[in-house]
Amino acid sequence: MERAQVPETTIQRLPVYLRCLLQAQQERMPVINSVQMAEMCGSNAAQVRKDLSYLGELGTRGIGYDVEALIAHISRVLGITERRRAVVVGYGRLGGALRSYTGFPERGFEIVAVFDADPAKIGTDADGLVVRPMEELEDGIREVGAEIAILATPAPVSQQVADRLVSAGIRAILNLAPVRLHVPAGVAVRQVCLSTDLQILSFHLAQEQLT
Amino acid sequence: MERAQVPETTIQRLPVYLRCLLQAQQERMPVINSVQMAEMCGSNAAQVRKDLSYLGELGTRGIGYDVEALIAHISRVLGITERRRAVVVGYGRLGGALRSYTGFPERGFEIVAVFDADPAKIGTDADGLVVRPMEELEDGIREVGAEIAILATPAPVSQQVADRLVSAGIRAILNLAPVRLHVPAGVAVRQVCLSTDLQILSFHLAQEQLT
Repeated sequence: MERAQVPETTIQRLPVYLRCLLQAQQERMPVINSVQMAEMCGSNAAQVRKDLSYLGELGTRGIGYDVEALIAHISRVLGITERRRAVVVGYGRLGGALRSYTGFPERGFEIVAVFDADPAKIGTDADGLVVRPMEELEDGIREVGAEIAILATPAPVSQQVADRLVSAGIRAILNLAPVRLHVPAGVAVRQVCLSTDLQILSFHLAQEQLT
Repeated sequence: MERAQVPETTIQRLPVYLRCLLQAQQERMPVINSVQMAEMCGSNAAQVRKDLSYLGELGTRGIGYDVEALIAHISRVLGITERRRAVVVGYGRLGGALRSYTGFPERGFEIVAVFDADPAKIGTDADGLVVRPMEELEDGIREVGAEIAILATPAPVSQQVADRLVSAGIRAILNLAPVRLHVPAGVAVRQVCLSTDLQILSFHLAQEQLT
């Protein structure tokens, strides 16, 4: 299985390449070379060629990559040839923003259920879905066939909710609470931490102010 | 200036180390070694030692790192020894969630102004701040002395707003709109893209389902 060797940093760039390729497709480019891709993605051509080489022999030397074929291939590698089903757990302001984010379907994801613990929210409309109570979490996840959970609960309960998600069969969690989750092997977690992003920005500010 | 050589991947881990060290401080540990830090951060000890070695000669062989000293040092490197001032631009659901996020102050940031274009929102309360009109963006930023902007505007206007932020003196932008910003050299941008995070999770799901 060649995918096992794809470095994590390359995996993280694949969604960016895919976005650029979809843009190229919209602009009706049949073929794209690594220099053009690098320009669109804000990368460099050598990096693009190296990253794509992990996925197999894809381009034609001196010509470039077939746009349609490369879109199909990266989509396959990313496992989004069919839409993956996700649930949102925690329907506060952040959960609400996520539910109403219109970019997910075109990127391969569909939100199929929303859960919250607050009796005032349960049963209300969540952009076309009904907010379901936390008591229905496990049954609801199995019912809708969700694989991914977007966790937007308050930090103190996030671990406990994550445990329930895992026991309900969820194998991938996008965690928006500022808390490190402990999950069994085989469950993928990505932590969205805006404080961390701000600190990285601050590093660049500090560096500039020192030079 | 030794900081210029710190690899970007190391920079991205510094906020995580800082968070672990603050936890160690809370637990009243005077000294921490790389094995303990790696355990807390979900990393490995060699990585921790290598990353910290970029910041200078910090630990004592066979003993470890002085927790207080290392907190102070990483905070200096990240430029958060004093709180940095940030503005939120776009006070929709996402902007609202960001404004009310209580984790920023303890991580070195303070939100000092909120802007929106919607007349229905202008003048209303934003967790203790008043939502200001976009017309006041440049003057407002200078007035409050903000260095960082958190951009939560609709995608179609984000580039145009980013241009105004840069001309008002903003040198770091956390962009939450799903659009790639073009900014002059010397302005740092971090893109928060949840679709990208979901696609990376999906890669791990796809890989597992194939093996």
